[in-house]
Amino acid sequence: MESIRSPEVYTMKGGDGPHSYAKNSTLQRHVIEVAKEAMKETIAEKLDVGAFNSSKTIKIADLGCSVGPNTFEAVETIIEAVRSKYGSQGLSSQIPQFQVFFNDHVSNDFNLLFTTLPRDKQYYAAGVPGSFYERLFPEASLHVVHSSSSLHWLSRVPEEVTNKNSPAWNKGRIHYANSGDEVIRAYKAQGERDMEKFLQLRAQEVVNGGLMLLNSTFNPNGTHPSQCVSHLFVDLIGSSLMELARKGRISEEKVDSFNLPIYLMTPQEMEAAVERNGCFSIERIETLASRPRGNGGNESLDHQMAAHIRAGMEDTITQHFGEDIIDELLDLYRKNIREIFIPFLAKSDGAKGESLLVVLKRKY
Amino acid sequence: MESIRSPEVYTMKGGDGPHSYAKNSTLQRHVIEVAKEAMKETIAEKLDVGAFNSSKTIKIADLGCSVGPNTFEAVETIIEAVRSKYGSQGLSSQIPQFQVFFNDHVSNDFNLLFTTLPRDKQYYAAGVPGSFYERLFPEASLHVVHSSSSLHWLSRVPEEVTNKNSPAWNKGRIHYANSGDEVIRAYKAQGERDMEKFLQLRAQEVVNGGLMLLNSTFNPNGTHPSQCVSHLFVDLIGSSLMELARKGRISEEKVDSFNLPIYLMTPQEMEAAVERNGCFSIERIETLASRPRGNGGNESLDHQMAAHIRAGMEDTITQHFGEDIIDELLDLYRKNIREIFIPFLAKSDGAKGESLLVVLKRKY
Repeated sequence: MESIRSPEVYTMKGGDGPHSYAKNSTLQRHVIEVAKEAMKETIAEKLDVGAFNSSKTIKIADLGCSVGPNTFEAVETIIEAVRSKYGSQGLSSQIPQFQVFFNDHVSNDFNLLFTTLPRDKQYYAAGVPGSFYERLFPEASLHVVHSSSSLHWLSRVPEEVTNKNSPAWNKGRIHYANSGDEVIRAYKAQGERDMEKFLQLRAQEVVNGGLMLLNSTFNPNGTHPSQCVSHLFVDLIGSSLMELARKGRISEEKVDSFNLPIYLMTPQEMEAAVERNGCFSIERIETLASRPRGNGGNESLDHQMAAHIRAGMEDTITQHFGEDIIDELLDLYRKNIREIFIPFLAKSDGAKGESLLVVLKRKY
Repeated sequence: MESIRSPEVYTMKGGDGPHSYAKNSTLQRHVIEVAKEAMKETIAEKLDVGAFNSSKTIKIADLGCSVGPNTFEAVETIIEAVRSKYGSQGLSSQIPQFQVFFNDHVSNDFNLLFTTLPRDKQYYAAGVPGSFYERLFPEASLHVVHSSSSLHWLSRVPEEVTNKNSPAWNKGRIHYANSGDEVIRAYKAQGERDMEKFLQLRAQEVVNGGLMLLNSTFNPNGTHPSQCVSHLFVDLIGSSLMELARKGRISEEKVDSFNLPIYLMTPQEMEAAVERNGCFSIERIETLASRPRGNGGNESLDHQMAAHIRAGMEDTITQHFGEDIIDELLDLYRKNIREIFIPFLAKSDGAKGESLLVVLKRKY
């Protein structure tokens, strides 16, 4: 067994203050709501109760769980669906116990996660600290793995894009959507290496017949990253940082050396990764309509998305640029959402920038 | 399965500041050092490798773990001993994986626990929040349970001792060692109820043949609590609080309504509890010499013990009395340690106030 290294770490903002992930995860919540029905359906159809029959305890892991309430709802949905499946097979008397492992980076706010666990939960809860690009669980010890809005985080920024001497140097940008082909290729290669590692590790941890329900933002097949709504969302952080550099508030070098470790796979890339790995069958792959529309129309979307960025990336950004710039940055970001993102959204078709649900089964 | 209730909670001081448990757990550490050899020996003699043979993963729980480093050392000791046992049986090629569950109250500082996990650890780590007077784990899911310096914490203060109309009302004291027989009986009854519950829950969670290594402060057989060094240690907090009341810094009623939920069992009471429960055999029961002597002679013992109280009980005390009194209280406590505790220690015999190690095996 490998000892645990500390990879570069990108964590959601902890605590339950006004800028915390706990209070600003509406977009992720939306994905879970939409995914709920699909997950229930999949478990009803695909869960192989026979394979789990000898286990008195069904073990579920939520990878990249952050803090509640989204992870708690996802877990409840899975448990309810497993119970129903046992019921529909005439096995109500044999419904197992459930043990749920909440996983996220060691810097995640597990204290908050634990103090907000639902009081009426019908499972044994545990927290597991560590990157899902490392082994987290004993061999063949998990029955259902869930991950939502997390798999787009890479294990690291691809090396080349911060190297001035590389053709893949990502000057003046913090992401790849509007960069040259070399940068896109470097990110794609990192995304493929990471997914290969992810699948290889999970193949060891998941029991034969076990299910993985993976939910993530994606890049539609055949769409250039620059035309993908989810990328624009990230890219506008870069534009806002460059505006700060032009105003002299931060140096341009500082922006050059900052890159977000995020890669959005296409469904085709995901399928290819699963095939290369060879240990899982694809039981379901579909896009879910979950594009953010704002709570109160487009007027509030800029605030909603800025809050989302703050909750999800503030720590990453302030670690690099310091804390002083964050309010100014988010003002610019909100302006860019209003002036660029919302018009783009209005003219783009509905299929772009949605969420991808992939259900894998560990082969026997 | 019961849903998780929130019992009264008493947690060690979190963080890693100068008053934290992480920096002031010398006394507990001493217990672990002394217990180490005994635990190794017991595992070598008593661990039934055959019973675990079908398990690819040995699951270990440390109940009431607080934060490191003590819990990490205890866990390492157990894992080393299990490996040696496999080796000595010619089963080196079948050495299993280890999964360790670190348990403590939900208010424990799990964030600190996780960020200080040993980098070279050879086990899969998980945190489990909750009181060990509730179910924490699935049925028959643990192979080795460890608990050190925790089992003297009761699930609650016995009701009668805070009731003005009860003959067990504990006026002017915060503990039972120098109180009347009614108070002592109320504490003893609570201690027995709690131990009954503890053993009943663990009997469900531990696999047949599994071991429990329980380490705790105790009251020697046949010694009145008032003559037991460990009680005096606690009782002097009460005396110090009463001095504050006499000075008018806190009200006497405030002291009357405060009681520490701590009960020190005698070895006989422990044996009787295990027998009543019926699910475990006593494999070993012995007292370990681990009386605090101070790091630099008796001069430093007062500071060491005040730091120990601060780390272990500051939260409990300030929740009741507010934060303003804590420094003054600890000054008085140090004085009482010098004037009462150290002279008492000098004339008491060595057998009193040591640590009790009990090793139980889950019957087949």
